[in-house]
Amino acid sequence: MSAAALFRVEKDLLGTLEVPEEAYYGIQTLRALNNFRLSGVPLAHYPKLVVALAMVKQAAADANRELGHLPAAKHAAISEACARIIRGDFHDQFVVDMIQGGAGTSTNMNANEVIANIALEAMGHAKGEYKHLHPNNDVNMAQSTNDAYPTAIRLGLLLGHDTLLASLDSLIQSFAAKGQEFSHVLKMGRTQLQDAVPMTLGQEFRAFATTLGEDLARLRSLAPELLTEVNLGGTAIGTGINADPGYQHLAVQRLALISGQPLVPAADLIEATSDMGAFVLFSGMLKRTAVKLSKICNDLRLLSSGPRTGINEINLPARQPGSSIMPGKVNPVIPEAVNQVAFEIIGNDLALTMAAEGGQLQLNVMEPLIAYKIFDSIRLLQRAMDMLREHCINGITANEAHCRAQVENSIGLITALNPYIGYENATRIAKIALQSGRGVLELVREERLLDEATLADILRPENMIAPRLVPLQA
Amino acid sequence: MSAAALFRVEKDLLGTLEVPEEAYYGIQTLRALNNFRLSGVPLAHYPKLVVALAMVKQAAADANRELGHLPAAKHAAISEACARIIRGDFHDQFVVDMIQGGAGTSTNMNANEVIANIALEAMGHAKGEYKHLHPNNDVNMAQSTNDAYPTAIRLGLLLGHDTLLASLDSLIQSFAAKGQEFSHVLKMGRTQLQDAVPMTLGQEFRAFATTLGEDLARLRSLAPELLTEVNLGGTAIGTGINADPGYQHLAVQRLALISGQPLVPAADLIEATSDMGAFVLFSGMLKRTAVKLSKICNDLRLLSSGPRTGINEINLPARQPGSSIMPGKVNPVIPEAVNQVAFEIIGNDLALTMAAEGGQLQLNVMEPLIAYKIFDSIRLLQRAMDMLREHCINGITANEAHCRAQVENSIGLITALNPYIGYENATRIAKIALQSGRGVLELVREERLLDEATLADILRPENMIAPRLVPLQA
Amino acid sequence: MSAAALFRVEKDLLGTLEVPEEAYYGIQTLRALNNFRLSGVPLAHYPKLVVALAMVKQAAADANRELGHLPAAKHAAISEACARIIRGDFHDQFVVDMIQGGAGTSTNMNANEVIANIALEAMGHAKGEYKHLHPNNDVNMAQSTNDAYPTAIRLGLLLGHDTLLASLDSLIQSFAAKGQEFSHVLKMGRTQLQDAVPMTLGQEFRAFATTLGEDLARLRSLAPELLTEVNLGGTAIGTGINADPGYQHLAVQRLALISGQPLVPAADLIEATSDMGAFVLFSGMLKRTAVKLSKICNDLRLLSSGPRTGINEINLPARQPGSSIMPGKVNPVIPEAVNQVAFEIIGNDLALTMAAEGGQLQLNVMEPLIAYKIFDSIRLLQRAMDMLREHCINGITANEAHCRAQVENSIGLITALNPYIGYENATRIAKIALQSGRGVLELVREERLLDEATLADILRPENMIAPRLVPLQA
Amino acid sequence: MSAAALFRVEKDLLGTLEVPEEAYYGIQTLRALNNFRLSGVPLAHYPKLVVALAMVKQAAADANRELGHLPAAKHAAISEACARIIRGDFHDQFVVDMIQGGAGTSTNMNANEVIANIALEAMGHAKGEYKHLHPNNDVNMAQSTNDAYPTAIRLGLLLGHDTLLASLDSLIQSFAAKGQEFSHVLKMGRTQLQDAVPMTLGQEFRAFATTLGEDLARLRSLAPELLTEVNLGGTAIGTGINADPGYQHLAVQRLALISGQPLVPAADLIEATSDMGAFVLFSGMLKRTAVKLSKICNDLRLLSSGPRTGINEINLPARQPGSSIMPGKVNPVIPEAVNQVAFEIIGNDLALTMAAEGGQLQLNVMEPLIAYKIFDSIRLLQRAMDMLREHCINGITANEAHCRAQVENSIGLITALNPYIGYENATRIAKIALQSGRGVLELVREERLLDEATLADILRPENMIAPRLVPLQA
Repeated sequence: MSAAALFRVEKDLLGTLEVPEEAYYGIQTLRALNNFRLSGVPLAHYPKLVVALAMVKQAAADANRELGHLPAAKHAAISEACARIIRGDFHDQFVVDMIQGGAGTSTNMNANEVIANIALEAMGHAKGEYKHLHPNNDVNMAQSTNDAYPTAIRLGLLLGHDTLLASLDSLIQSFAAKGQEFSHVLKMGRTQLQDAVPMTLGQEFRAFATTLGEDLARLRSLAPELLTEVNLGGTAIGTGINADPGYQHLAVQRLALISGQPLVPAADLIEATSDMGAFVLFSGMLKRTAVKLSKICNDLRLLSSGPRTGINEINLPARQPGSSIMPGKVNPVIPEAVNQVAFEIIGNDLALTMAAEGGQLQLNVMEPLIAYKIFDSIRLLQRAMDMLREHCINGITANEAHCRAQVENSIGLITALNPYIGYENATRIAKIALQSGRGVLELVREERLLDEATLADILRPENMIAPRLVPLQA
Repeated sequence: MSAAALFRVEKDLLGTLEVPEEAYYGIQTLRALNNFRLSGVPLAHYPKLVVALAMVKQAAADANRELGHLPAAKHAAISEACARIIRGDFHDQFVVDMIQGGAGTSTNMNANEVIANIALEAMGHAKGEYKHLHPNNDVNMAQSTNDAYPTAIRLGLLLGHDTLLASLDSLIQSFAAKGQEFSHVLKMGRTQLQDAVPMTLGQEFRAFATTLGEDLARLRSLAPELLTEVNLGGTAIGTGINADPGYQHLAVQRLALISGQPLVPAADLIEATSDMGAFVLFSGMLKRTAVKLSKICNDLRLLSSGPRTGINEINLPARQPGSSIMPGKVNPVIPEAVNQVAFEIIGNDLALTMAAEGGQLQLNVMEPLIAYKIFDSIRLLQRAMDMLREHCINGITANEAHCRAQVENSIGLITALNPYIGYENATRIAKIALQSGRGVLELVREERLLDEATLADILRPENMIAPRLVPLQA
Repeated sequence: MSAAALFRVEKDLLGTLEVPEEAYYGIQTLRALNNFRLSGVPLAHYPKLVVALAMVKQAAADANRELGHLPAAKHAAISEACARIIRGDFHDQFVVDMIQGGAGTSTNMNANEVIANIALEAMGHAKGEYKHLHPNNDVNMAQSTNDAYPTAIRLGLLLGHDTLLASLDSLIQSFAAKGQEFSHVLKMGRTQLQDAVPMTLGQEFRAFATTLGEDLARLRSLAPELLTEVNLGGTAIGTGINADPGYQHLAVQRLALISGQPLVPAADLIEATSDMGAFVLFSGMLKRTAVKLSKICNDLRLLSSGPRTGINEINLPARQPGSSIMPGKVNPVIPEAVNQVAFEIIGNDLALTMAAEGGQLQLNVMEPLIAYKIFDSIRLLQRAMDMLREHCINGITANEAHCRAQVENSIGLITALNPYIGYENATRIAKIALQSGRGVLELVREERLLDEATLADILRPENMIAPRLVPLQA
Repeated sequence: MSAAALFRVEKDLLGTLEVPEEAYYGIQTLRALNNFRLSGVPLAHYPKLVVALAMVKQAAADANRELGHLPAAKHAAISEACARIIRGDFHDQFVVDMIQGGAGTSTNMNANEVIANIALEAMGHAKGEYKHLHPNNDVNMAQSTNDAYPTAIRLGLLLGHDTLLASLDSLIQSFAAKGQEFSHVLKMGRTQLQDAVPMTLGQEFRAFATTLGEDLARLRSLAPELLTEVNLGGTAIGTGINADPGYQHLAVQRLALISGQPLVPAADLIEATSDMGAFVLFSGMLKRTAVKLSKICNDLRLLSSGPRTGINEINLPARQPGSSIMPGKVNPVIPEAVNQVAFEIIGNDLALTMAAEGGQLQLNVMEPLIAYKIFDSIRLLQRAMDMLREHCINGITANEAHCRAQVENSIGLITALNPYIGYENATRIAKIALQSGRGVLELVREERLLDEATLADILRPENMIAPRLVPLQA
């Protein structure tokens, strides 16, 4: 086999390069590959982004066809190529590094070139014979990176959103189920790591479900609010220069139809071309969910601390041996990993924020980093939530007797007796208990301050964990 | 005058202290003053927070009165005290450092003590005679720091929100007015700091108005969505232990009435007691506005760079001499200060995020820092926006002739001629222009590629800055 | 008294303003006051910065005198003024906001004007009669903000450094003393919040001393390495334009002498004028100390958790009542406040980092924020360390019996028995203990696996907490 | 082929799993693979970490052999395995995700298992026959993850340090060479984006070399200062429990010999086990270098802005076509990518900081994230520096005539004439120039304020860009 067959020669403004014969990408993608060897994370790592790029190209081709600028044969071939990419056939051809200069031009050209070469083969031509169908003139017709790229990022985020919500929802259901399962487990609540007043373990887990439920609702509403307004049709800097006046409307309409997402045209295309506000707030919201997950995992690690010298109210399922030196040691490895994912997401939010701030004038050149960090945060968040649910929450058990004993042994119990025995008695008993190491119930019984029936009534969980009109006041 | 008259002796669980006689705060506030000498920023620095604390105390007193737990005389005296604080009479008595341990207990006790002592004087007693009216038993009745403090923070943010929105709105109006004023100023748009295609200076300023307008709408809707749900009535950890079952409903209702804010009770009080999600997202939104302002100010500094060796499209009003060495140098000091405020707000968001993540179990002990940082960000943001509008935007003028000359001298102009002279001619002319330093119009004229009438038509601003069906295609 | 007496009229390039008659600052300071109402924190908040500014002005005046450019009378008056400021007499005249545009010009002019007016009065003239001694021509002679301001910041940091080190050193001594005091208190060590193997409480506190000791050494060496190279003499952009060739050497030499700091001239003045690297790394080091303090305080809060349902190994001194509802509750308020200070310092580091990154070309215009954040971090750090030492560490006591009982009750104890009873026995005993809730010692005794003498030997603290050749292997 | 041949069954405390027959890792690695599907970045991504792990295992085996605890045959087999890993033969077997719970136990076990299985084959046994040589008992002998893992991270960083320094040094040389090449190119210096005073382009590029040169020196000294003290020998929590008293000294000595790095034992092993301070500061230093690179790239993008409507002092080499719409547009894609890498590194530093703060008690469980982020930052930094040098700096050219013309056309030139024509003339000329748009030289000539010979002398580059005693003062 001759060397000539291994490569084809392509040409652009800067000269010629040898492109591997089997590659569907072309010379501009190759230049970007050579320029940017940075994160090692290619576009293909985020399949929804690749699919979104193909949908944008399809929508543009449809609009151009309808306006009479793109011949039927070319339109058919481009459509065939886009359909195959959307099906997932050519994701490995999206090779450019997620971190790249050029404000996404390399990503856009990667898509244009791959589509052009698939289309060329569909038309019976060889890859690289761009005179029959050109990456720029035909596939990128009426588009600029400035509008096609941000539109694809927004669409890619929308396409993956339901999966993120589903993972979050499943996790919430797990917490809620545990809330139900543990609804009868009375335990001490703690503020500032100090014993406070009784509550149930069920209330604690239900609160985890509630707090994540708020994030589910917020994420569900924020995505369409922030991401459905697209700047497709703005071309270079949002003026729509050289575009057909009918193009923007048609292209966005087609994209909405193809993607099934309620996309609408941006009202101020100049603004929409450079504005990164939607990503900043969306990432801020992902950060909020990460913060909540991290707080919950901190709590899970505290509650399962021990087994002998910690709080030991719950048991996390053992996932792997914890130590080669200490027999029987099992560690809370799943929550620990979630904490680290949360820190990563918070770091991503910062990188994204700096990228948003660093944009200048009519375009934000740091948008590739913004896209990278937001897709990365979503993927990490989703994986962490799935891991947490499957490998931890679902298998948590409660040490009910220990929880109950801790309540009965606590000084904090005195707060519940307060309305019955009076503040002075309560304070005195608390002090004796603290100094002597004895229990407040023991002392109350010893001093016959309350009879057993009343005590039993007070200590019934449902009476300790909610507002209540105390009998003495009645 | 004897030394005895300068102090009164107060007592708490830890012992006695001498409180300055003129102080309306009491022993617990004094302990906090001694403990926390950190930021040097007292509660009084944020008047809306002080007012909100007084409103919470008033609402609780009203509910307790209605439920029959607080006698009429005490209620009247507390009401008198709260009213005077709300009017602003005693703000200097709110002395505790914004950074404090104890999850806000010191802030809550500062309010309880000041109200008690004002009320005592109103009842004809001396300050410190708590047997007649007690900071804890009466002013703090049916409350815990755990519910009173977060409720006051949320209310304080809501009380100040209209002013923030008004500052933002005024700034938007200024940008919009400049957008109108500069609507006829044709200039080069730039992407990646490289000459791109023409636009108007009006479009650029209108985009500033648009992008901030999105933030105005978002901030307006987010505040009620995030902040109106309050945990008042949850007492210690959200179980409402020892509270009257009717209290929560009454207290929140009264607070809504007193404050004029649409407050509602939190559905899950356990969750609401420890959750900081609302602050994380609200701060994330403030960060977004800060990022946008910083980007705008970066642009203003770029556009006014020069006067001779920069872009020099606009002139910022001179605010102060720029140099003692260089005659005539004037610097863009106002946008520079806005940039720095933006960085500060981004730093605040990080500190707040860490505080939110660091909360454990049934309460977030880092809430004082969260309150501090969010009030600080709002104040800085508002002041920066007022400064930017008054001292910079309103006085900006355009160098119209220079802007126009830059367009006519640019290579980027060739893009507008592209549809008329064809891509090959355009590329050739662009190359000659770049190499020779000559203008593309000059070259087009020299080669008689277009007649003067057509050229004039193409170069009319309204034809350069929007989609257009080119005559040749017709 | 006539209105004329209340103000004097001063003039600059932009026109005239009425300056309050009693003010020692002048028109340019007044403009800055009007321009920048942002943080509310004036220069005077950081006395070492004010002193450093006066020292820089003194050094410049000395150099100018020696080179023959400044007459003796003016030099004497400026010297008198600088001496008084260094003594602390006029700090209230340093009124400009720490956040300011203009790259520090307003700070520099605030110093120039105050010095000029004090000097004028010393010469027998009225404030504002600048024809006799001029803020720019005389006080600022041979300087630019570009060199005088960064030099003063570095010097200000150096002047305050010993105090910071002293606070850190005192805190280390406190931890070390507790390490000594608790050297006999055997307790369980924990990894991942799970019981691990025994150690002493003394080892734990000594480790706090060790880890902060590393920071003391690092901070001590970093300050001179990073801050003693100053760019005084670079004038405008570091070229030293219009300066006397002998000036730089003389001025820096004088400044070193006056301040007692080993200052040296920067080798590359162009670089030194815009480089913020020293501040970035110094702040990064402050962040590291903050991280360590926060980790230590997290540990203190964990170790003192309880009293009944937590770890409860140590008691923090009670600083203020912890709750109005729960008798006897005392919270770890001091460590909680330190955590928040740490988060603030980490946020400061971020704001500073963004400011450093945002500088452009020959000067970093964001330097005022950098100065603000670094002085703020140092002050907060120092105050937090003093608070932690005085109000917490010195008063910590150990619950020795409880610590010992937890060790004896732990499963982790089996690790120490491992070499004596063999791995299989150890694993079996550990399992029985976990399932039955019984102690491993109890089980070992029951099975007569070891005699009491051997057990006593193994359980001696000094034998459990260090490498040891076990007798069985001998 | 039967299914039995595809897997082998391994067993640990939690039960049995089928391990793929070809895998050299074992059951604990497999559990970790199943638990942690997060970043998708395996250990193998950082070869120096893998090599360092093998070196640690070799050193431990050598020490155990010397102390008589490890038989010669096992030692020989382990040595063979470690040698092959160090050569790079089995890196693909290091499969665990960089983000993992368990404080690095999975990483340590991945190494133990791979080494055991290679060694087993070398001894003539099948993989998984651990009775002949055990991952825990033999390979991990006298080690805990708590000491082996942090030691390997530090060593891994040291092993890669020279390459990082070499990349930085090469970049510095490139900047220095350009500083030399452009030493005669006179241009305007700018402060606050406003024209200031003249300098040379050579000075500007030399300053880039200088500022990075400071980082080279700092990085070179920091690495040994921070990373050579290792906690190997501390076993579980640093007490060295169950270890031979002679082990620590021997093991560290061997590791230093094997690695060629000047490793020393940590003085306080309790402290060294949990302390992350070295990583926090090292990452802070990487952040500083990133900030400097980002600032330099911001400058490069500004200086090359245009070509017609920007500063246009330099030309960056064209790396890829910049636009499909605008003929001839070339963008500064390389500096843009460096900016984004810098933001990523700053985000990494934050994630690492939070992980360091989040460690509790005797171990930092977040250490895997710390390792991940610091290795990632180093790799990104190095690649970005190589990219910047090769694809950008080396090919930069200057627009000398344009630079010179800008100086001569500037108002800032008047500063250089100031000492010759007097401040009043200078101010007047500057004003006329600004208002009329004319040049200051032209005006000075018109008014015959200076003769041509003097003007030529003043305008000679060497006279404009350094301190100088002006003739008039002589």
